[in-house]
Amino acid sequence: MIADPPEPIDAADRVRASFARQAMMATMGVELVSVEPGVVVLELPFSSALAQQHGFLHAGAISAVADSACGFAALSLMSADAAVLSVEFKLNLLAPAAGERFRATGRVVRAGRTLTVCSAEVEAIIGVERRLVALMQGTMMAVRGREGVKD
Amino acid sequence: MIADPPEPIDAADRVRASFARQAMMATMGVELVSVEPGVVVLELPFSSALAQQHGFLHAGAISAVADSACGFAALSLMSADAAVLSVEFKLNLLAPAAGERFRATGRVVRAGRTLTVCSAEVEAIIGVERRLVALMQGTMMAVRGREGVKD
Amino acid sequence: MIADPPEPIDAADRVRASFARQAMMATMGVELVSVEPGVVVLELPFSSALAQQHGFLHAGAISAVADSACGFAALSLMSADAAVLSVEFKLNLLAPAAGERFRATGRVVRAGRTLTVCSAEVEAIIGVERRLVALMQGTMMAVRGREGVKD
Amino acid sequence: MIADPPEPIDAADRVRASFARQAMMATMGVELVSVEPGVVVLELPFSSALAQQHGFLHAGAISAVADSACGFAALSLMSADAAVLSVEFKLNLLAPAAGERFRATGRVVRAGRTLTVCSAEVEAIIGVERRLVALMQGTMMAVRGREGVKD
Repeated sequence: MIADPPEPIDAADRVRASFARQAMMATMGVELVSVEPGVVVLELPFSSALAQQHGFLHAGAISAVADSACGFAALSLMSADAAVLSVEFKLNLLAPAAGERFRATGRVVRAGRTLTVCSAEVEAIIGVERRLVALMQGTMMAVRGREGVKD
Repeated sequence: MIADPPEPIDAADRVRASFARQAMMATMGVELVSVEPGVVVLELPFSSALAQQHGFLHAGAISAVADSACGFAALSLMSADAAVLSVEFKLNLLAPAAGERFRATGRVVRAGRTLTVCSAEVEAIIGVERRLVALMQGTMMAVRGREGVKD
Repeated sequence: MIADPPEPIDAADRVRASFARQAMMATMGVELVSVEPGVVVLELPFSSALAQQHGFLHAGAISAVADSACGFAALSLMSADAAVLSVEFKLNLLAPAAGERFRATGRVVRAGRTLTVCSAEVEAIIGVERRLVALMQGTMMAVRGREGVKD
Repeated sequence: MIADPPEPIDAADRVRASFARQAMMATMGVELVSVEPGVVVLELPFSSALAQQHGFLHAGAISAVADSACGFAALSLMSADAAVLSVEFKLNLLAPAAGERFRATGRVVRAGRTLTVCSAEVEAIIGVERRLVALMQGTMMAVRGREGVKD
């Protein structure tokens, strides 16, 4: 008897599975809103547990959700044998991160076999209003076979 | 009767007080190891709650502790009427963030009246071994009178 | 006899005048293509004098034209008493900079009284084809009264 | 008769040869001051042809010399079959770039097989005085066999 081949797993499913394994996202209460090829949206409700000394969302929390949005956007375009690691990112804080929710949209700017360049916008949401509070530009790396090894 | 003037509060005390108000640091379990003028050391024990999908410390957690180390290093050289906000930072991940503890050392590279440029190194600690896992370069801003307003 | 007041100089004129004083732009052969509020386009013809060791445009030349596009985009939204200085920028090189011409489009993402965050795209042009070769994200600063002093 | 094997070419010689092929460096008047494993020093005399609108060295010229110092520092630790390309860099301008000469010191922070992270300091020199005017952090990539292809 020959086993059926495994169902093909599409990229969106791989992103969802990888997101589910990111404990940091669960700890922060981040939700995966949508996955399209090259674009991933995450959302984080404000929590005072993630605030800095003035009561705004800490820049580290913003960078966590923006970095993950970038990483999953990159992963959504990678071949199924690849894992993704962050090489570097740069974050500009544009306004105090005051809001009820924060929405990070990660987009692939250029996908290469090894390196993928992404950008992410983070918006603060209060009621129906949205305000851009942070902008990220970064580099993600596909790791194959030697998962977890950066070079 | 004339009230005594308030005790002068030195910069290290202001850093400790500001650190104590950063809920994100408490949430992550970060400790303030030392404060010297222009140099602040923070330490974070590894927690699986802060991991990414491969079990290493999430880049967002690394950037949170590095950003705070930079911000407090900047604050340690600011006048007593100033609060500090992050303008921007850039983080390079040098190696998988595997460790028992993570030590972020933030240093002021150049302090200006409004803008202060800082760098931070994050080391992973396993037993007696230390390994550099991330490097940050960023800009902090002194805010006076209009706390929380970025420009 | 009372002299007429000076003609009001609009922002686009101020950008053109400032561009004309940037010797580096003339040295590189950069042209000012267009100025709109918050968006400035510069173009640089390829020159082997600006190449790196593989014959592509040097990353420093790319960053010069991208930084200037950002700076002038920021200046186009500043009040007439302000000069602009670069605080910091980050450049990702997306593809080898091979082309006949290079077009840098600088855009203001958020304008503040003191700090303005910009992004720039640099495209290589070969015939009718355009290819994105670099992406910049950076911070510009308005300097008033004390021109040339960073803080 | 058997030909002698080619003289071994050491890393410093490869850096010098690569530097000699960087037309941009000659155009700007940059000199290669020293090469040690992982550390390269370049120097640039001030020229009004490289100035911005206030008469200081243009940030693009600073980033060109800092990027090259980083790239050659990375190349000095790479195997002989590798060429080097810049992946990305971030530059903070710390003070107006006023000086007679500018010295860029590029240092490898972490060398990997594919990616190398570097930092560079740029100092302005006036007489015997030196002042730190810029700080770079960036990523260089070793390219083997498919020179010029970024991924």
